[in-house]
Amino acid sequence: MDPNSTPVITFVGLSGTGKTTFLEKLIPLLKERGLRLAVLKHDAHRFEMDRPGKDTYRFSAAGADVVAISNREKFAMIEQPSRELSLEEIISRLPEVDLVLTEGYKKNDRPKIEIHRAELNRPLIAEPGELLAVMTDEPLPVSVPQLPLTDAAGCADLILGYLRRYRGEAEG
Amino acid sequence: MDPNSTPVITFVGLSGTGKTTFLEKLIPLLKERGLRLAVLKHDAHRFEMDRPGKDTYRFSAAGADVVAISNREKFAMIEQPSRELSLEEIISRLPEVDLVLTEGYKKNDRPKIEIHRAELNRPLIAEPGELLAVMTDEPLPVSVPQLPLTDAAGCADLILGYLRRYRGEAEG
Repeated sequence: MDPNSTPVITFVGLSGTGKTTFLEKLIPLLKERGLRLAVLKHDAHRFEMDRPGKDTYRFSAAGADVVAISNREKFAMIEQPSRELSLEEIISRLPEVDLVLTEGYKKNDRPKIEIHRAELNRPLIAEPGELLAVMTDEPLPVSVPQLPLTDAAGCADLILGYLRRYRGEAEG
Repeated sequence: MDPNSTPVITFVGLSGTGKTTFLEKLIPLLKERGLRLAVLKHDAHRFEMDRPGKDTYRFSAAGADVVAISNREKFAMIEQPSRELSLEEIISRLPEVDLVLTEGYKKNDRPKIEIHRAELNRPLIAEPGELLAVMTDEPLPVSVPQLPLTDAAGCADLILGYLRRYRGEAEG
């Protein structure tokens, strides 16, 4: 996939704002609107995608740089790169989709949607210039669209509008 | 990765011949010889690469066509395609490697190494014309190289020889 032409929207927000739960609500709404979707999570911690004893795990443990497994329903791949992959490198490895949503990767220059929760009593973490919208449970002094935290459907529509503009720009 | 230019060797053998165990011994020997390696397994059964409760699992369950997770050590991707991916489609999704080994995918036209065990008392399953070698614990009436089942190092050398010829052909 061409990392430069693929639309990417990054979800940012402090820990505890509910980014994962929000994405979980948003994904089916974007699917209903006909989008083919990839969701990428940056994980600061160690994660295990495989299980000891499985053949793929054994191949990784034996030193394979990449292991993959496939059947009718699923294709999975695990790579052990020599250094952390950049967002662009990751996108180039993904199959063709209409939109990539990321959780984490907040230092990239792609448009962002911030999840904000009043009770955390902290300012926004994204720069105003890079924000597409804020999902918030209190009014904020920013000029970008503000939607209620509960309004995942409104967020899906806003994303569709962004994609239409993005495609228009890409074609024009 | 260009599926046409990537060397692929397919390991075939009846169930119970020890293909996975053999690959487990072969992989570190190929790594010692400096190869960057991908290992692909075809799985006829349902496999779980992810675990309920994990964020990536939640994104898949919510309907994301592709989920990916990355950190310094690892990059993992799970795709739910609408139909089973072909070997060529899978190879095009893999990062650049020197060699892809597959377990399964025996119907492709790539060179094969068969693992044969006398006690199973069955003929070879690969066509003689597609065989690069046979790893066997008994002499067989075939004209391709036959190596002892225990000789993973000999198999690694044979693969290196194949790669040299393959690259020579690709360049010439």
